[in-house]
Amino acid sequence: MSEWYLSELDLEYIALGAAILGTGGGGNAYLGKLRAWQQLRAGRRIRVIPPEALDDDDLVIAVGGIGAPTVGNEKLEHGDECYRAVRAIEKETGQRAAALMTDEIGGANSIEPMVAAAIADLPVVDADGMGRAFPELQMNTFFIYGLKPSPGALCDEKGNTVVFTEAQSPLWLEKLARAGTVAMGCTAGFALPPITGSQVKQWGLKYTVSQAWRLGKIVSEARIAKRDPVAAILAHENGRLLFRGKIVDVARWTTGGFARGRLEIEGFDMHAKASLQIEFQNENLIARLKPGDELLATVPDLICLVDSETGRPISTEETRYGLRVAVLGLPCTPLLRTPEALAVVGPAAFGYDVAYQPLGEYVTPEPVMK
Amino acid sequence: MSEWYLSELDLEYIALGAAILGTGGGGNAYLGKLRAWQQLRAGRRIRVIPPEALDDDDLVIAVGGIGAPTVGNEKLEHGDECYRAVRAIEKETGQRAAALMTDEIGGANSIEPMVAAAIADLPVVDADGMGRAFPELQMNTFFIYGLKPSPGALCDEKGNTVVFTEAQSPLWLEKLARAGTVAMGCTAGFALPPITGSQVKQWGLKYTVSQAWRLGKIVSEARIAKRDPVAAILAHENGRLLFRGKIVDVARWTTGGFARGRLEIEGFDMHAKASLQIEFQNENLIARLKPGDELLATVPDLICLVDSETGRPISTEETRYGLRVAVLGLPCTPLLRTPEALAVVGPAAFGYDVAYQPLGEYVTPEPVMK
Repeated sequence: MSEWYLSELDLEYIALGAAILGTGGGGNAYLGKLRAWQQLRAGRRIRVIPPEALDDDDLVIAVGGIGAPTVGNEKLEHGDECYRAVRAIEKETGQRAAALMTDEIGGANSIEPMVAAAIADLPVVDADGMGRAFPELQMNTFFIYGLKPSPGALCDEKGNTVVFTEAQSPLWLEKLARAGTVAMGCTAGFALPPITGSQVKQWGLKYTVSQAWRLGKIVSEARIAKRDPVAAILAHENGRLLFRGKIVDVARWTTGGFARGRLEIEGFDMHAKASLQIEFQNENLIARLKPGDELLATVPDLICLVDSETGRPISTEETRYGLRVAVLGLPCTPLLRTPEALAVVGPAAFGYDVAYQPLGEYVTPEPVMK
Repeated sequence: MSEWYLSELDLEYIALGAAILGTGGGGNAYLGKLRAWQQLRAGRRIRVIPPEALDDDDLVIAVGGIGAPTVGNEKLEHGDECYRAVRAIEKETGQRAAALMTDEIGGANSIEPMVAAAIADLPVVDADGMGRAFPELQMNTFFIYGLKPSPGALCDEKGNTVVFTEAQSPLWLEKLARAGTVAMGCTAGFALPPITGSQVKQWGLKYTVSQAWRLGKIVSEARIAKRDPVAAILAHENGRLLFRGKIVDVARWTTGGFARGRLEIEGFDMHAKASLQIEFQNENLIARLKPGDELLATVPDLICLVDSETGRPISTEETRYGLRVAVLGLPCTPLLRTPEALAVVGPAAFGYDVAYQPLGEYVTPEPVMK
């Protein structure tokens, strides 16, 4: 079983793929990539290991940015937030992490653990707890399937650190961490409670770093070969083209620490005379055809906006009038389609009174290197 | 040097005196008294020691309720919040507390450490950091004169615990703790960073538990002897009668975790034809005569509302139309009148563009028992 040392090009691929999987959120992957490049250029290494490389009682700490992506684009990180959050968890538990991980492979959060791992000289596990991005902490397979919700740690760029030593539920951890994040200025670095090696193997989504890498690679290669990047994404992920059109309206408000909003896309081609409405909370939550309100896709399936020509993923904070986009629906993992999971990440959990209709079969990712 | 074991009557006196010193806030002292009585009736003991009984390197943890008093009257405590906050600080620092203390002698917060101390079987120091109540954490002599602002700990009645392991300033500790408190439902128990015995002796206000006890006792005795309780308070504290009248208007809003508002009192007797306006943030901040805006008193001096007949202190959440009140101005400690202190607790710190004019000489409290 070999280790995988990431190059700048690997990070380019991962950032691109993760921005697609981010379904609009997860933090700005371009900024994430720059931060990871900075680590490589400082002589540090980023090393990815498969979940099988973990011993069952190894401790893995999952980290990521928390807050409103709209803010994260302007209030830049110091860079060591997630690293300090890892150290705070280690201090609280009295145990050292064997590896880091992301709990969401979407957006910059695919790369946040890599930056912290480079500083700490720890490996990053090729897995996550979402296979996408979700706006709230409790929305990952680890919490859904039973991970104890404390301790968690929150660090800001000013040097403040808050440790949630006892949380009565994953939702309480979310509420308290969100309140702290808002007080810190709407973005911060967060570390989840330690996850054992056996829990990663049991509850984690395997090879999602590899999945992001492959997705980024096929889009890059399609562009170079003048093939259709949108078709390449759909083929790779068994996805469905939900809509093509031009963004004609965006309503956006940053409240409670989230970037919330709604956008409307006027149809082209086969979708002429129809329009698509998407609502988002950091990430795209639901896509409905207008008029008529036909439901095209909802969480936990992935609703991804990409530039209809280049396949460039468009995050919720980048959406604006005039962009020509393709809206893709990608099937999520079966681990997010169980009744326990749908209670936390299904449409009802976001306040939508609609039944979840699965988009299709999930394509189980393959590792880049074993 | 003997220890002082509090009786139910002692707690009655302390609660009454502390409600006066609370200048409208500090939490409902009546509820605080009931909680302390409950401890005594469960067979536990509450023991008060003078600051001189501390060794210089003893660790003292100051605790109290945090939040909006309006909420604290309805969302009752579980009872062990401050105790758990003490244990969280001990766990974080790896050191045991030798004694507990309140950082504000005003209101229920005079008694909160006694409840926690009864559970922990620790003594309570006869001192505090305000000599009154203030709405925010950074507003005490320990932080003003240099106490490191971390770690602090916040516990709610549901069992959630948050530890502020690194705070960049006392104000950051306040911001983060306040955000957590609001998420917890607007009230919680808080423990300050450990204070050494020598810091208590250097920066603390000595014998303020004794002061509250004496103040409660003289009001009780004046009532029994049919003497004027208001005159008794003023004599004991070298205070000034600022106004007598009837409350004719109260505006109140609970925002950002505080009970904020403004009340208007129509004058009687010597104050007929005038009215007094008081603004508050948990505690009374400023008293101005209308019309004309003559400034009668501001923070950090104490602006206390009491029933004009019985001397019963009236908290900001109890103010209502029709109450006949005496408004008393009591001089604060010189430790709150230095330039460093006024920067944190003077009128400008609360957004008032007025100069602080001291009300008179502070009466240094005497210990009940040495």
